Amino acid sequence: MYARCLVVVIALAAYGQQNTDAPQYTAAGELLSPTNYREWIYLSSGLGMTYGPNASEPEDPRFDNVFVNPSSYRAFLTTGKWPDKTVFILEIRRSVGKGSINNGGRYQSEIVSVEAAVKDERRFPQKWAYFGFGRNAKALAAPATSSCNACHGKNAAVENTFVQFYPTLLEVASQKGTLNPAYTATTRAH
Amino acid sequence: MYARCLVVVIALAAYGQQNTDAPQYTAAGELLSPTNYREWIYLSSGLGMTYGPNASEPEDPRFDNVFVNPSSYRAFLTTGKWPDKTVFILEIRRSVGKGSINNGGRYQSEIVSVEAAVKDERRFPQKWAYFGFGRNAKALAAPATSSCNACHGKNAAVENTFVQFYPTLLEVASQKGTLNPAYTATTRAH
Repeated sequence: MYARCLVVVIALAAYGQQNTDAPQYTAAGELLSPTNYREWIYLSSGLGMTYGPNASEPEDPRFDNVFVNPSSYRAFLTTGKWPDKTVFILEIRRSVGKGSINNGGRYQSEIVSVEAAVKDERRFPQKWAYFGFGRNAKALAAPATSSCNACHGKNAAVENTFVQFYPTLLEVASQKGTLNPAYTATTRAH
Repeated sequence: MYARCLVVVIALAAYGQQNTDAPQYTAAGELLSPTNYREWIYLSSGLGMTYGPNASEPEDPRFDNVFVNPSSYRAFLTTGKWPDKTVFILEIRRSVGKGSINNGGRYQSEIVSVEAAVKDERRFPQKWAYFGFGRNAKALAAPATSSCNACHGKNAAVENTFVQFYPTLLEVASQKGTLNPAYTATTRAH
């Protein structure tokens, strides 16, 4: 009887996990913004990061916080690769300078917008797709020809993900040998 | 029989939870640095935050990332208060400017040091204690007369915690009415 009980428990645990952090879509193919991403795994933050060739420091820099779904994170720690159904969330927040006891540097304030990157091999021929929710609850994927796809495809350190900006994962990918050859060549050139 | 099974499962779940994110001490009373805090709940980050009265912007600003143990986070969402055995981790990292495709702003690099704040009512007469691990695996609490205790006790928004810098929790505390009166008075004065 306890063996049967254990099977029920394991089945429930697997069901719960699968249904909490895989991408969810509407019938029209829009990705639903995950409501609980703040309880996912945090990867890193930047402040005022800019990618243009002649970038100037913005006067009102924004923080970006990156989260990934827990089951994909656990897979990455083991393999250095992203399993199908991986979901990244980029949360962009206003920054504040002076406030409370803070007299220098910047801390985080309200959300400006939320974006997502999803690996879904059956749904997207290019495997990875990009979504700008803004402050909405759902969004269609950017077209496969978008600048998101082009930049991630060309510059990311592991598959289409900017692991070069996530220190804990960069270490894993280096050890597992899963860094993209193009990325490795760039770092050697410097 | 299923009722008995359920009791066993709940007991195991409670046991597991208690043992994964409560503070752990050595026989000598040192707090062990939690090895899995990167899988705890992320609260927020700052860059170059400084608290002195005449602070100047540092040339080499550091990021601070704040995490809290999951069971205490869930309690806070319900009550706006921190349960006994709450553990906060402050992870301090170097920041980097230009690198890879980043031409402006800053992103995170290696760990400089790790600190902790712990609420443990039976162990510490002042309830909250502060620990500087540096890059070590364990640390003794700063004395109750330390500047950590004084500043947290005087300026924090909820109990001894700087919820004013954690946007998602500030909203919860405001709704639950658990902001410290001294903090509320300060924000009204501005």
